[in-house]
Amino acid sequence: MSAFAQPRVFAPVVTPFADDLTVDTDRLVAFCRWLTGQGAGLALFGTNSEANSLALAERRALLDRVVEAGIDPAQLLPGTGACALPEAIELTRHAQRAGCAGALMLPPFYYKGVSDDGLFGYYAEVIEAVGSADLRVLLYHIPQFTGVPISHALIERLIAAYPQTVVGIKDSSGDWANTEAMLRRFPGFAVFPASEALLTRALPLGAAGCISATANIQPHAIAALLRAATPEARALCDAKVSTIRLAVQAQPMIPALKRIVAHFANDPAWTRVRPPLTQMDAAQSAALIDQLVALGFSMPALDVANA
Amino acid sequence: MSAFAQPRVFAPVVTPFADDLTVDTDRLVAFCRWLTGQGAGLALFGTNSEANSLALAERRALLDRVVEAGIDPAQLLPGTGACALPEAIELTRHAQRAGCAGALMLPPFYYKGVSDDGLFGYYAEVIEAVGSADLRVLLYHIPQFTGVPISHALIERLIAAYPQTVVGIKDSSGDWANTEAMLRRFPGFAVFPASEALLTRALPLGAAGCISATANIQPHAIAALLRAATPEARALCDAKVSTIRLAVQAQPMIPALKRIVAHFANDPAWTRVRPPLTQMDAAQSAALIDQLVALGFSMPALDVANA
Repeated sequence: MSAFAQPRVFAPVVTPFADDLTVDTDRLVAFCRWLTGQGAGLALFGTNSEANSLALAERRALLDRVVEAGIDPAQLLPGTGACALPEAIELTRHAQRAGCAGALMLPPFYYKGVSDDGLFGYYAEVIEAVGSADLRVLLYHIPQFTGVPISHALIERLIAAYPQTVVGIKDSSGDWANTEAMLRRFPGFAVFPASEALLTRALPLGAAGCISATANIQPHAIAALLRAATPEARALCDAKVSTIRLAVQAQPMIPALKRIVAHFANDPAWTRVRPPLTQMDAAQSAALIDQLVALGFSMPALDVANA
Repeated sequence: MSAFAQPRVFAPVVTPFADDLTVDTDRLVAFCRWLTGQGAGLALFGTNSEANSLALAERRALLDRVVEAGIDPAQLLPGTGACALPEAIELTRHAQRAGCAGALMLPPFYYKGVSDDGLFGYYAEVIEAVGSADLRVLLYHIPQFTGVPISHALIERLIAAYPQTVVGIKDSSGDWANTEAMLRRFPGFAVFPASEALLTRALPLGAAGCISATANIQPHAIAALLRAATPEARALCDAKVSTIRLAVQAQPMIPALKRIVAHFANDPAWTRVRPPLTQMDAAQSAALIDQLVALGFSMPALDVANA
């Protein structure tokens, strides 16, 4: 659990595409470098990475390229969940062998109304198949996308069966009552809210930091919040990051993040998304960026990193 | 559209697993032979096939094995939709090159609240990438699993753009008003309800038959209904098939179908499911089978086919 003992911020890294909609690996690596330089870990292949629009082969190849490019695997927390058990096993094994800090695992999300027994079976099969004492699994609770919630009873059962392996959860439900209940019920379990706007409430209860969409655009400010030594300093940081978070989350998240990166990187290629997503409307995007600039927002040195 | 001009029944073929949860190809081929012998086409890789629990590589290999085993590709309507566009392209191209009657395409189902523009983009990218005049695509509307409904406006747009390619839809919503509205709005478009219990209402409106879970267990009876020459004969068939359908759909569908096949094939291996599904409770299953037997249900020659 040591990788998650100190509160950290992870960005579910947005994925750039070339004009033929293939993954733009060079831009991705450059952006990963910028993010780590700003103090963020890399939750590659998250929801905001359009990971579920990437083929298995693309996810494998991309992880390899990021590591080959010299990014420290200890910074990596890739998404490895998949509807198909063999694919979840393959991705999780690949992440573990690459030396990643952990694997963030969606439940299988096609079939609905599945039982905790069935979900336990899925996670257990993956863990047993990978069969490594070094594997660290974080569960991923995002019922608004999966339709498959991760219950506290399931968490309890997984921790009991695999105490060294199942070490945390990302709670993307946006339901603070759920986050708080997990923090209280599972001390030592790495609970990551999915928004930096929840950190001032979550950190005193032992949260492990956050894995947040908007960590793609304000990693430095979130890292500063995590380092804040006094409640006053934390409150100041919180005011800043929460204002930005709220402005962005009022928009379609992934297209908006890509517009923001494109703007501050001076690089229009970043706006591309894969179907079924569509780009954010240009006028709406310009208004959002004006709003962010008026709030004093910037992404320092991003244009240089991507040049 | 000729492949769908005469009403047909397709079974979303249930997928047998070995005790290590790998696909049991021999059992699958034997069951496909039995189904076609009973008058059903084969909608391999449907929801009831646990297709979304199968890896891309498994789906490719299985289709190859079924065709190599001598099953006529004209009988095949495999599911080829996937969350990731490159995988949907690969599966659809593979099905087209194998000579399948068509490809049944789920929308990408992870991201929610996506626009018709985004879904049109997904289907258009697949169709353009496959780039074959022989490709026939059927859309797959099953919002209770995908959370991504296929609107009539989207259908209209796809038909207008690809009139020779986008030739039909499976409506698994269970919402008769939706099925009826599509039948009336899109004459000549092959609309398949997902239950044989809807056929007597759907056929007079021009339905293309049905693609039904329970076609796995009563293909012959559904085929008889489709052949019925008079309203009286059809009503008789309907009473039979609907009674069985209703009894089975009151249970967890996939585990129940597998229990029924296992029973009538005298082959307990058929009960296995992949996580996140779990096997149907044995007592509950025995009660269901007693109920079916009391209704006069059987699966003729299945034990021989699987021997």
